Amino acid sequence: MIETALADPTVAEFTQLLQTDAYEMIQEDTLLSSSLWANVALAGLSILTFVYLGRDLKNTRAKLIWVAVLLVPLVSVSSYSSLLSGLTVDMIMLPDGHPLAGEPQFSSWGRYLTWTLSTPAILVGLGLLAGTDFTKLFAAVTMDIAMCVTGLAAALITQSYLLRWVFFGISCAFFLVVVYILLAEWPADAAAAGTGEIFGTLKLLTVVLWFGYPIVWAVGIEGLALIESAGVISWAYSALDILAKYVFAFLLLNWVRNNQDVVGAGPSLLGSGSDSAAAAAD
Amino acid sequence: MIETALADPTVAEFTQLLQTDAYEMIQEDTLLSSSLWANVALAGLSILTFVYLGRDLKNTRAKLIWVAVLLVPLVSVSSYSSLLSGLTVDMIMLPDGHPLAGEPQFSSWGRYLTWTLSTPAILVGLGLLAGTDFTKLFAAVTMDIAMCVTGLAAALITQSYLLRWVFFGISCAFFLVVVYILLAEWPADAAAAGTGEIFGTLKLLTVVLWFGYPIVWAVGIEGLALIESAGVISWAYSALDILAKYVFAFLLLNWVRNNQDVVGAGPSLLGSGSDSAAAAAD
Amino acid sequence: MIETALADPTVAEFTQLLQTDAYEMIQEDTLLSSSLWANVALAGLSILTFVYLGRDLKNTRAKLIWVAVLLVPLVSVSSYSSLLSGLTVDMIMLPDGHPLAGEPQFSSWGRYLTWTLSTPAILVGLGLLAGTDFTKLFAAVTMDIAMCVTGLAAALITQSYLLRWVFFGISCAFFLVVVYILLAEWPADAAAAGTGEIFGTLKLLTVVLWFGYPIVWAVGIEGLALIESAGVISWAYSALDILAKYVFAFLLLNWVRNNQDVVGAGPSLLGSGSDSAAAAAD
Repeated sequence: MIETALADPTVAEFTQLLQTDAYEMIQEDTLLSSSLWANVALAGLSILTFVYLGRDLKNTRAKLIWVAVLLVPLVSVSSYSSLLSGLTVDMIMLPDGHPLAGEPQFSSWGRYLTWTLSTPAILVGLGLLAGTDFTKLFAAVTMDIAMCVTGLAAALITQSYLLRWVFFGISCAFFLVVVYILLAEWPADAAAAGTGEIFGTLKLLTVVLWFGYPIVWAVGIEGLALIESAGVISWAYSALDILAKYVFAFLLLNWVRNNQDVVGAGPSLLGSGSDSAAAAAD
Repeated sequence: MIETALADPTVAEFTQLLQTDAYEMIQEDTLLSSSLWANVALAGLSILTFVYLGRDLKNTRAKLIWVAVLLVPLVSVSSYSSLLSGLTVDMIMLPDGHPLAGEPQFSSWGRYLTWTLSTPAILVGLGLLAGTDFTKLFAAVTMDIAMCVTGLAAALITQSYLLRWVFFGISCAFFLVVVYILLAEWPADAAAAGTGEIFGTLKLLTVVLWFGYPIVWAVGIEGLALIESAGVISWAYSALDILAKYVFAFLLLNWVRNNQDVVGAGPSLLGSGSDSAAAAAD
Repeated sequence: MIETALADPTVAEFTQLLQTDAYEMIQEDTLLSSSLWANVALAGLSILTFVYLGRDLKNTRAKLIWVAVLLVPLVSVSSYSSLLSGLTVDMIMLPDGHPLAGEPQFSSWGRYLTWTLSTPAILVGLGLLAGTDFTKLFAAVTMDIAMCVTGLAAALITQSYLLRWVFFGISCAFFLVVVYILLAEWPADAAAAGTGEIFGTLKLLTVVLWFGYPIVWAVGIEGLALIESAGVISWAYSALDILAKYVFAFLLLNWVRNNQDVVGAGPSLLGSGSDSAAAAAD
C-alpha cells in the first residue's frame, strides 16, 4: 500500500513528506529537541523581562534601543518554534567530497534565515548605543544581512562541496566587515557619546561569541564533520544564541534603563546622516 | 502511461505537479475564483483612482502618505494574481488531530506572505497621519511583520496540530501589540497633530476589521474547521481585504487630499526620532 | 535499481534531485557557465576596486553613496555563485500555449530574486546623487522592488501562459513608474543640487540598459522563445548586468570621489522628508 501511494503521490502527500523525516528526528533525539526547547523557554522569559524593564523608558533613543532589543527574543521564539515544528529543518544529502556524503543529514537551515532578522536588531541596538551615524549603521546592517543570506546559501547547497565552502568564505568576508565596524569604527563614536565603557563590554561579548558560529559550522556536520552529532551541534548554536542574544540584550537594556540621561545626550542618528544638525547650528 | 511518468519523474515534472492540484481547484470552484478575481478588479480600480487623487499633492508628508496608500492595492493586485496563477496556493495535508486531517485541503498561504508587505504600508499611512514618532512607527511595523510571518508559519505547519495553534497564538500576541499602539499611543499623537477625528475613524475601522482575520482563521479550514468551504473562507478574507485595504485607503487618501495644510503642519516623523528638533529649538 | 529508488524516494533524495538537472546543464554548457563565471570575476574585481576607491571618503553623503554602490557587486557575486551552485536555477515545464511547452527549460529564477536587492541599491545611489527627498526615493525603491517581485512571479508561473504575460505586464508597469521618476522627477533635483551633468549621464545609462531586461525576457525562453539558447539568453542578461551594475557603479563612485564637495553641499535626504529644516530656519 505504501508502494502504491508513492508510485502515484499527490502533491499534498509529497509536501507532507518534505517535513516528516527531520521532524521525527527531532522528536526522537532528546539532546536535539532539548537544545530547541531551551531556547523557546529562555526567549519567552526574555520577552517578559524586557517588556517589564522597558515599561518606564521616557527618552526617545532609549525607547528605540528597547524596541530593537525586544525584537531579538521575539524573533528567536518564532525561529525555535519553527525548527521544532519541522517547518525550517530538513534532511539533506551532502555533496560528493563531503565526509558525510551518501546519507541524509539533519539541517536546521531555518537558523540562518532567522539570523537575518535577529542579528540586524542586535547591531541596531549596539549602533544606537554608540551614537553612530546612519551611514555606518546602514553599512553594518547590510553586511550583516549579506553574511546571513550567504550563510543560508552555504547550508542549502547540495551539488558541490567546493561551492559550500566558497559561500562559507563569502559569508565570513561579510562578517569581517561587521567586525571591523564594531572594533574600529564604533568605539570612537561611543567614546564621544559617553557610552564607551558599556559599549566596550558589549562589543567584546558580541565579537567573541559571533566568531563561535562559523567555527561551529566549520567543525560540524555542514563543514568538516569533525563533530557528527546533530544534537551536539544544535546545542552549540543554542548556547551561543543564549549568550549572544538574551544575555547580551539583557545587559544592554539594563544599562540603558539606568543611564537614560547619557543615552539621550548622544548625537542624533538621523541628524548626523543629514545636514539638519549643521543647518540648526547656523 | 501516467504510472510510468510518475514512477520516474524528472524534477521538471514534479515542480509542475506542485502547482497543479490547487490551480485546478481554483479553476473549478466558481465561488473561490470569484473571491480572487473580485479583488484583482477592485485593486486595479483602486490603483487608477488613487493615482488620479494624488496627482495634485504638493505637501511632502501628504505625498508620502499617498505613496504608502498606493502600495496597498499595488501589493494586492500582485498578491491575488499570484493566488490565481497557482503560484502561492497549495493543497496541504493537515496534521493528526485536525478535524480535516487525512485529505488534502486548499491553502492560500500566499495571502500571509503578501500581508507582510501590505499591512506595514497601512500602518505607515496611519502613523504619518497621526504624526507619530519614528520609534512608535518602527515598533508598530516590526510587530506587524512578525504577526504576518508567524501567521504564515501557522499556515504552513503540517506536522503538529498543537504547533499550528502555538504559532496562531504568537501571531495574535504580535497583533495585540499593534492594537495597543493603535488604540493607546497614536490617538494622543493624532490629537496633537490636529488629525484626531479622521484618525479616530480609520483607527476604529482598522482595529475592528483586522480582528476579523484571526477569527476567520480560527473558524475556517486552517483552524477549527467549523466552516469547511474553501470558497466561503476565501470570500471572507477577500471581503475583509476590500474593506480594510481599498475602502480604508480611499478614505485616508481622500481626507489627506482635502486637508493638506493640516497634514503638513504636524510634527516631523524623522525629526522626532532625532535630536535635530531640539537642537533647532535652542 | 533506479526504478526502485524513485518508486520509494526519501525526502533527502528528492531534495537533491531538485537541484541536479539544472546544475548539470550549467556544467555541460560552456556558453552558459561562462556567462555566470564572467560575472563572478567582474563582481569580485569591482568589490576590490570600489573598496580601494572609497578608502578616503570623508563626506557623509559620499560615504553613504559608496556603501550603496558597494552593495551592487556584493549582491552580484552572491547571486552568480548561487546560480553556479544550482541553488537558484531549475528546469521548469512551461505551460500550454508557450512555444517550448512540453520539455523542461532552464530557468535562472535566482536572477529576479537578487535584483530585488541590487537594483534598489542602484536607485539609492542615484537618488542620493540627485539629492532627492525621502518620498521620491521611497517611491522609486518600492516600485522597483515590486517590479522585481512580480518579475520573479512571471518567471515561476507554470500553470498559465496568459498569467505569465499578465505578470510581465504588471512588472513593466512598475518599471515605467521608476523610469518616470528617473526621467521626470530627479533631473530637476539633481540640477538644484549641482550634480545635473553626471546624473544626466548615469540616468541615461540606467534607463537604456534597464529597458534591455524586459526585452531579453520577452524574446527569450521565458517569453516568446524567439531565442531558444539558454547560453545566449544568459549572456544577454550577464552583459546587461556588467554594464548596468559594475560600469555604472564605477562611474558613479569615481565621480563622487572627485566631487565630494559638490555631493556634500546638496539638500538633505532626511531633512527634506521632515520639517526639521524648516524648524531650523525659523
